[in-house]
Amino acid sequence: MHHPAPTASLAEALREAAALDAADPLAHFRARFVHSGDSADAVGVNKAGGGDGLDAVRALVYLDGNSLGRLPHATRTLLAAAVDEQWGHRLIRSWGEGWFELPERLGNRIGLLLGAQPGEVVVADSTSVNLFKLAVAALRLLSSDPQRTRILSDDMQFPSDLYILQGAIELLGGRHTLEILPSPDGIHGPVDALLATLDERVALVCLSHTVFKSAYTYDMAAVTAAAHAAGALTLWDLSHAAGSVPVDLGAAQADLAVGCTYKYLNGGPGAPAFLYVRRDLQERLANPISGWMGRADLFDFAPDYAPAAGLRRFLSGTPPVLAMAAIEPGVELLLEAGMPALRAKSLAQTELFLRLWELELAPRGYTLKTPREAARRGSHVALGHAEGWRISQALSRSMGVLPDFRRPDNIRLGIAPLYTRYSDVVTAVAALARIVDERLYASYPAALATVT
Amino acid sequence: MHHPAPTASLAEALREAAALDAADPLAHFRARFVHSGDSADAVGVNKAGGGDGLDAVRALVYLDGNSLGRLPHATRTLLAAAVDEQWGHRLIRSWGEGWFELPERLGNRIGLLLGAQPGEVVVADSTSVNLFKLAVAALRLLSSDPQRTRILSDDMQFPSDLYILQGAIELLGGRHTLEILPSPDGIHGPVDALLATLDERVALVCLSHTVFKSAYTYDMAAVTAAAHAAGALTLWDLSHAAGSVPVDLGAAQADLAVGCTYKYLNGGPGAPAFLYVRRDLQERLANPISGWMGRADLFDFAPDYAPAAGLRRFLSGTPPVLAMAAIEPGVELLLEAGMPALRAKSLAQTELFLRLWELELAPRGYTLKTPREAARRGSHVALGHAEGWRISQALSRSMGVLPDFRRPDNIRLGIAPLYTRYSDVVTAVAALARIVDERLYASYPAALATVT
Repeated sequence: MHHPAPTASLAEALREAAALDAADPLAHFRARFVHSGDSADAVGVNKAGGGDGLDAVRALVYLDGNSLGRLPHATRTLLAAAVDEQWGHRLIRSWGEGWFELPERLGNRIGLLLGAQPGEVVVADSTSVNLFKLAVAALRLLSSDPQRTRILSDDMQFPSDLYILQGAIELLGGRHTLEILPSPDGIHGPVDALLATLDERVALVCLSHTVFKSAYTYDMAAVTAAAHAAGALTLWDLSHAAGSVPVDLGAAQADLAVGCTYKYLNGGPGAPAFLYVRRDLQERLANPISGWMGRADLFDFAPDYAPAAGLRRFLSGTPPVLAMAAIEPGVELLLEAGMPALRAKSLAQTELFLRLWELELAPRGYTLKTPREAARRGSHVALGHAEGWRISQALSRSMGVLPDFRRPDNIRLGIAPLYTRYSDVVTAVAALARIVDERLYASYPAALATVT
Repeated sequence: MHHPAPTASLAEALREAAALDAADPLAHFRARFVHSGDSADAVGVNKAGGGDGLDAVRALVYLDGNSLGRLPHATRTLLAAAVDEQWGHRLIRSWGEGWFELPERLGNRIGLLLGAQPGEVVVADSTSVNLFKLAVAALRLLSSDPQRTRILSDDMQFPSDLYILQGAIELLGGRHTLEILPSPDGIHGPVDALLATLDERVALVCLSHTVFKSAYTYDMAAVTAAAHAAGALTLWDLSHAAGSVPVDLGAAQADLAVGCTYKYLNGGPGAPAFLYVRRDLQERLANPISGWMGRADLFDFAPDYAPAAGLRRFLSGTPPVLAMAAIEPGVELLLEAGMPALRAKSLAQTELFLRLWELELAPRGYTLKTPREAARRGSHVALGHAEGWRISQALSRSMGVLPDFRRPDNIRLGIAPLYTRYSDVVTAVAALARIVDERLYASYPAALATVT
């Protein structure tokens, strides 16, 4: 294989990135996260100097915040207090000292990132369980119209959401159909096909606002307006959008939404999810998992369920308090930085990535699987390559750059502007280039993947 | 009001308790839990000496382990490592380094306390969500028989379980009926009525093995055998039984069970729950909340759901890792002590309580709301009193003894033999006596309650 020399453009890009990092108004947020010692397993990182900036790398370049956000220092402090003080010392009394309010209090903080009103977001369960609750509730609300049996989604939707919808359909008697519209190019959402097929037989449109593979981001307001014109409800999965792109549920008049807190919100591994229901819909929807935490006066202990007023009715069982409490500091960091500044930096970083992809990576066999249009792009860049899996292995194990991988060949590089540096982008591109030039992937076996 | 002098029997009981504590083979487990500083809010505890043992009390007497178990020291250590090392340092790589296996690995450890085989218990979601999944699955399994529409429970069942069953019935079209059999005396389960009414129209018998109010404990094997003779399935809520009474799901041939981990298992506030499905039933049951964590090959990312082999199919979304990891040390402490030794101590302590109730508390207006028969008794003692709510307030706020309370008048005193001392039992009885004698409850307003 031909080994191209390190390009002048990468060296130039590294100088440019250093200047951008120095001028970055969000740069100080990086120190609010734990970084120390995290390159320990990247043995032999950047041993071979090449003038392309890799020599300078010592710490892990973490480009998987789209899968699991980094640990904020404040979360360590908060969790220690929650464990020692609230559980260890106050014990059961802590329920009356804040634990009961956590789902709504944290929901309202997350709602500020999403254009929701107070009382429109609560934290509960997992994304899949929340999607189940809202999808079943929506389909039952619309069941008075026997014609309205179509559910629309796309093949960019996170598979768990499709599985949940399939289960909900079966549970409700099988009279609904799930239509999975194909993306026209594997990158963009099938928005034209979607708008064209919307009719009075559609009950629910269920999409990811930002899709997990390509980071394509739907125009939420336009899709919602079209769905409403057809009399359908919308259910958005915000897992890859919350904290990464501007979301305005209120302006879009979105009906329902769910999302996880462990990606861009930095809530911790598998942290409880959130759900959103527009205020005027709340009293019309019934939670199918009608547990005591969603009951009016949960200590009444009467034998019959009666839903709580407002969104609390969509709570079910007792929440995992420690994992839930841990969500707060990451959300607060996003609120402190502000979504406009975060989005501006994210776009600048993905644009830098796209420019370097064109110069350095396209010639080495990497295809771009993320929209080029800024307005449709989320905060990660997806690349395809025939050796995608082995390249992602070499990237994390030999180069100290941690990406995400999705079968069959999708290398996802997440930009989390709270802690991603411009120089990280250049480092990742340089590593991707060198892995191909030096066939560093060849020593890794073809095999399996990691988690969302 | 008449003030009886401190009785000689309490002073004698305290000496007896001190001897029992000194000889207790489980006494050393108490030091494995966090206790320090936990009487901080019990201002003025035991200021007035009375010769009845209260003077000696400095630390909180915690009798609410039946609601929230204490914090093991090992959990503090484990959580700090999970946060700093697994999340902070290893980041997304931790999924491949143990997180994915947590639901089954912890489930198998809990299964050892319950007479379950490996692969018959997993940790997931909340008790309410798990009950929903298993109840819906069971009712759908039996739906081929249109006659089999009766669901039996009792009025001792934890209300959330009844609410969940009501929701499941509605979701499945409303053709099932939930029959809530009344306890004959507010203490014992309606076991005679239950056995008499079992017939070929019963689909599901859903009971708490140990009921949350009185601690009455069903004969699981007898009820299960009778249910099976009628062709019905059993679904046991083990929340107040796991870690507190001997449970042998295998010997009883129980079909289904759920339970929480935050009471006697000491898993932490709202820690994820567990579910049990007998091996031969697993492949016949479908999880209605068919999320990706329950799919065969979850990284296949095919658009259609296919259940995982075995019990993993009853997982739904991504689990709250930190809250789940925290379960392990508490469970290991129970396994280390062994359920036979724990049960022996629990029975000795509740028997001591019952004896002192008869001598000291019955004359002061306290009624016993827990079975006297050892075989039918769990690990807490419930007392009724016309001033129950205010007495429980005085107990925790003035006397440094923390009980649990359930409306309308139910004071529950939990025995957790891993950390409850015989002297704690005497201290609680002495405090209950003094609160009545000195009308200490009179300064508290009549009001609300705490959490399960």
